[in-house]
Amino acid sequence: MAKNVAIVGVTGAVGQEMLACLEKSSIKVGELRVMASSRSAGKTVKFKGKDVTIIEASVDAFDGIDIALMAVEADQSEEFSPAAVKAGAVVVDNSSAYRMDPKCPLVVPEINPEEIANRPKGIIANPNCSTIIMNVPVWPLHQVNPVKRIVVSTYQAASGAGRPAMDELAETTKAWVEGRPIEPKVFPYQLAMNLFSHNSKIGENGYNKEEQKMVDETRKIFACPEIRVTATCVRVPVMRAHCESVNLEFTNPITEQQVRDILAKAPGVKIIDDRAANRSPQPLDATGQGNVIVGRIRSDISQPDGNGIDMFISGDQILKGAALNAVQIAELL
Amino acid sequence: MAKNVAIVGVTGAVGQEMLACLEKSSIKVGELRVMASSRSAGKTVKFKGKDVTIIEASVDAFDGIDIALMAVEADQSEEFSPAAVKAGAVVVDNSSAYRMDPKCPLVVPEINPEEIANRPKGIIANPNCSTIIMNVPVWPLHQVNPVKRIVVSTYQAASGAGRPAMDELAETTKAWVEGRPIEPKVFPYQLAMNLFSHNSKIGENGYNKEEQKMVDETRKIFACPEIRVTATCVRVPVMRAHCESVNLEFTNPITEQQVRDILAKAPGVKIIDDRAANRSPQPLDATGQGNVIVGRIRSDISQPDGNGIDMFISGDQILKGAALNAVQIAELL
Repeated sequence: MAKNVAIVGVTGAVGQEMLACLEKSSIKVGELRVMASSRSAGKTVKFKGKDVTIIEASVDAFDGIDIALMAVEADQSEEFSPAAVKAGAVVVDNSSAYRMDPKCPLVVPEINPEEIANRPKGIIANPNCSTIIMNVPVWPLHQVNPVKRIVVSTYQAASGAGRPAMDELAETTKAWVEGRPIEPKVFPYQLAMNLFSHNSKIGENGYNKEEQKMVDETRKIFACPEIRVTATCVRVPVMRAHCESVNLEFTNPITEQQVRDILAKAPGVKIIDDRAANRSPQPLDATGQGNVIVGRIRSDISQPDGNGIDMFISGDQILKGAALNAVQIAELL
Repeated sequence: MAKNVAIVGVTGAVGQEMLACLEKSSIKVGELRVMASSRSAGKTVKFKGKDVTIIEASVDAFDGIDIALMAVEADQSEEFSPAAVKAGAVVVDNSSAYRMDPKCPLVVPEINPEEIANRPKGIIANPNCSTIIMNVPVWPLHQVNPVKRIVVSTYQAASGAGRPAMDELAETTKAWVEGRPIEPKVFPYQLAMNLFSHNSKIGENGYNKEEQKMVDETRKIFACPEIRVTATCVRVPVMRAHCESVNLEFTNPITEQQVRDILAKAPGVKIIDDRAANRSPQPLDATGQGNVIVGRIRSDISQPDGNGIDMFISGDQILKGAALNAVQIAELL
């Protein structure tokens, strides 16, 4: 049965990829309604070869919509998502607005698809990008041997801060090459040929919001409040794929080979791990890919009981970190 | 008393900075003898306003030298360092050749200056750059509350692979901006707008050489074979300052304030850690600085006993990571 689908925020980096993912998805789209700010209203986007005109997003724009995909900031989602639900739609929200709401499931289809049915508010939350990318390969390991603690350091692309941030990275890199002064406006600091701690607000415990999301959302997605996570989130001068250095402590001993065997069969995971060639996941491998790429799989020599594994992963921030995950949720509806 | 000083490999990224650090140091230099490959012989370098002619490095070139600073690869150091010692010099070697030799001290002046006297082979080894940068702030904490375990992920600059690697990063970044194909020759993979696992050989345990150095050298420098370290070393598109995300497990509980108080007084450490402004160490802060910059100091919420600290640090790879540390050792001679 055809579904009427809305994409809100269709002109942004995530919105554009939602459109592309929707086109490739198994969802039979009846009406496609695309929305953005008033600036973009009247412009068109292509969907399956046809032009679709962008309308201004508003609370009155959801009549007849079955599935509303939100690719907007949290404050805008708080405005539009309840309106879409009221009009009869199920919302898949990419913002952080409803992620920790106990009445909204927080879903990665490879991990907890059964949670989709449990949505008293009519809103399904799409997790934080770094959290999705980390958890796609950690979950199948956790199923076999529960993970007690994760120490993760991220190498996050500009795309996480949206299209203007990607444009700024390109422009400031050009300025660096040309010897012109670099004046960031989207990011607080120069990202070209530099890096800095993630530009989200730092809380009272010293963790920034991105780090706290990785802690809190992992617990919710895994339905495992006892899993211990510490994260250090860092922006690096890369366009659109995140990397993460992940150190795991398991409940019981685990070998490299066990990890390889589990991940080789895991949905959404691809292994690139050639020690002889020193070939392991890079942002350029992950860019444009739906899978999370995993490599540098090795026993952690600092955990002599054999309970530790180190690995290095990369995933496309806009695809599996956002748009693709949201469309995969929509496919399950 | 004036000392005759040789710098071997003076034209490289580290050799050039050794020259600059020597100029600013307290060492009273009698003769300065600068050496490089035959390609550079006959060219000159400036030292205290005077031209000094580069001679070809050879085992016969060390007569009368008191201190020989080696800024060459391990195989070349194995050729020249014993020759310099035979000629009566004390060698400070920046290569990895003698670091794990039990007859050669491995020295960071802020940590184990007393080891300098204990040099039966006449060679003092300068540690790996990532190891120095990590250990300058970790050591003063370890003195107060022994560190049991370190989980470190690095964000390493191109400079660690030498001047040609820095040139390649600049050239490939220009190619990226201009839309030209990127063909790395120094690095195995594209570094511009990308990142990859450190380009050193991966051993049987799955750790690459850089990571294994951080494990082994930390134990030797701290004279603490029981300290447990796991490292994931990654190259990022940054020119010359390394960053490191450092997770520490201490023997006893420790507070953020204790860490701040200890590091505020620690030699070679500067704190940049403004939570309200989200301002913490960046490569551009560390570039050209002798100090290791420390920030993002916070209690690790994944260690509920209060024994854990996370921090993010940055240090100039060529200066404190190599040339400056070597000249500081020479100053102590």
